[in-house]
Amino acid sequence: MNSDLNPTSSASLASSASPAFVVGLDAGGTRTRAVLADLDDGRPRGEGTAGPGNALTVPGPELADHLAEALAHAVPEPLRGRVVAVAGGFAGAGHQGQGADEPGRVRARTALSAALARLGVTAATVGVHSDIETTFATAPGHPADGLVLVAGTGAVAARIAARTPAATSGGDGWLLGDDGSGFWMGRAAVRAALRAADGRGAPTALVLAVGRELGLPPGVLPPEGYGVTDTVRWSAALRTAYRAHLLPAVMDRPPVRLADHAPLVVRAAEDKDAVAAEILAEAARRLAGTVTALGPRPGEPLVVTGGLLAPHGPLLTPLTERLAHLALTVTPVSDGSPGAVALARLAHGADR
Amino acid sequence: MNSDLNPTSSASLASSASPAFVVGLDAGGTRTRAVLADLDDGRPRGEGTAGPGNALTVPGPELADHLAEALAHAVPEPLRGRVVAVAGGFAGAGHQGQGADEPGRVRARTALSAALARLGVTAATVGVHSDIETTFATAPGHPADGLVLVAGTGAVAARIAARTPAATSGGDGWLLGDDGSGFWMGRAAVRAALRAADGRGAPTALVLAVGRELGLPPGVLPPEGYGVTDTVRWSAALRTAYRAHLLPAVMDRPPVRLADHAPLVVRAAEDKDAVAAEILAEAARRLAGTVTALGPRPGEPLVVTGGLLAPHGPLLTPLTERLAHLALTVTPVSDGSPGAVALARLAHGADR
Repeated sequence: MNSDLNPTSSASLASSASPAFVVGLDAGGTRTRAVLADLDDGRPRGEGTAGPGNALTVPGPELADHLAEALAHAVPEPLRGRVVAVAGGFAGAGHQGQGADEPGRVRARTALSAALARLGVTAATVGVHSDIETTFATAPGHPADGLVLVAGTGAVAARIAARTPAATSGGDGWLLGDDGSGFWMGRAAVRAALRAADGRGAPTALVLAVGRELGLPPGVLPPEGYGVTDTVRWSAALRTAYRAHLLPAVMDRPPVRLADHAPLVVRAAEDKDAVAAEILAEAARRLAGTVTALGPRPGEPLVVTGGLLAPHGPLLTPLTERLAHLALTVTPVSDGSPGAVALARLAHGADR
Repeated sequence: MNSDLNPTSSASLASSASPAFVVGLDAGGTRTRAVLADLDDGRPRGEGTAGPGNALTVPGPELADHLAEALAHAVPEPLRGRVVAVAGGFAGAGHQGQGADEPGRVRARTALSAALARLGVTAATVGVHSDIETTFATAPGHPADGLVLVAGTGAVAARIAARTPAATSGGDGWLLGDDGSGFWMGRAAVRAALRAADGRGAPTALVLAVGRELGLPPGVLPPEGYGVTDTVRWSAALRTAYRAHLLPAVMDRPPVRLADHAPLVVRAAEDKDAVAAEILAEAARRLAGTVTALGPRPGEPLVVTGGLLAPHGPLLTPLTERLAHLALTVTPVSDGSPGAVALARLAHGADR
């Protein structure tokens, strides 16, 4: 029967009889995700998730465990010998101007090798990337050059040239910047509540929302409807008590927990709260400024991700509107693992 | 000879033979100051200083030691039996709406009693106040009602009614506010440097000043004159290296240390740096907003203090200009101890 087949069909048959696979990994601050895909067309064939994968903050042995767990779910045992390329995008694995000996990258490489060896995956090609690189690689057609903007708890933008970050903007951390991030929005919500309480700012529904989320005693909260209708008054005594409870409630938690309040801003803005709407608009303005600092060129691809900018993210529309004059091709993605799959396929010689 | 004297002279003689004294204490975050003064006219007769006196952050026994040390220097041993009234203004001793059982006030009272007993000072009247109250009591003529604004590392304003804080504005701490404070200015300086480095902001001499103050390696600093003249360029590689060194240098220290950089802003603004001048102007704007929230009335006294607003403080003039339309009587003071002396005299029945 085989003699009937022309060489092309023969190759196809051989390939379907013993197809090759790649694995893409997305190792972020909250979870690690592994995706198994066909080498040929990048079609996903399996996936698995495990705990945090930030290469700077997760200790090496734990990082290896999380990677191995995600890989074990994604790649069925019989297929582990047929994985030809693995690529991982790691949070904390360096962005720009930091060579292969950057500490996060070194740890990621060591942990990934250990995890692959443990599972018997002997891929010829293993690539370790920053999450910025894999995120950008999710852009349609997998271009080599363009822009990325990540806005979750933090906010950072990068220019990618030849698939590598060539410049970054923002990403200064919660203390100094991350303007327009979830942390920035959450802090703005608490600031707005405090400013309403002492008279520096306008009344806003954020007062009640923030106070409830921080578990303040109901007795110190303003009456229902405060900041929503003009007729609800908030007494001086309550304002004082509110502030006296709010400040320690915030200071008792790690500062970065302020990001928890970002969704309150989105909800209040949907309910037409003017203060919340202005916070959202200002966040979009600042994120646009973070991108603009990288000198965008008309038509360039811009991949956006993170809780605020993923598909249906609350800042996606205001940001896109704000950048409209730059005519960028904006692609929101929820996850860098398709980009990691793309980089694995490219590393093994696939042209797309 | 005594028979020659009229009753008034006799009283005067008696008083000069065995005059009575008061003590005013200013117990702040960096030092404790005690001033001995005449009961009659408030004239200072002695003073002493010792370590920190913040009633919330300094443990009780240590606080008592610092108070005793300052008192021992201020009040010579032979006069200790002739002190009739003591008043102390304590940082951390509560501001508004917090009764006499407020934790800082309790600790201040206990520590002050212990210190006075140790030295054999048996004053009939001992008053414990917040530093806001004693600061306001430095106003000329010792009025009972008016406004105070403190801008040092933090920033807070208060309305004083009947010598007691009746409302506060700002003072939310470094994480949430203290807008216009030394912390706010210092953070703004570092932010301006980072924004110049990644292209979001304009060139500024703060880049070099902040980099040097944080001990960055000279090799990553921009060329001399950057931000001062338009002709000095700063390469992309240096910008990247600068950011990579600056961020950990800041994050390795307690956040509040950002206040250390506030004087750099003042110096750069004096040298006509536009970015620094805008930070100063914005700080003055925010401090003015903190006062305005308290609903100032024309002619009211406003006592201002703290490193930014004490006599010759860098924000005194811009703030005064910004508040000019309110026709307040602005008094800058460097220290609350004269106010503490005034409160001690008033408590003992002096009418001024």
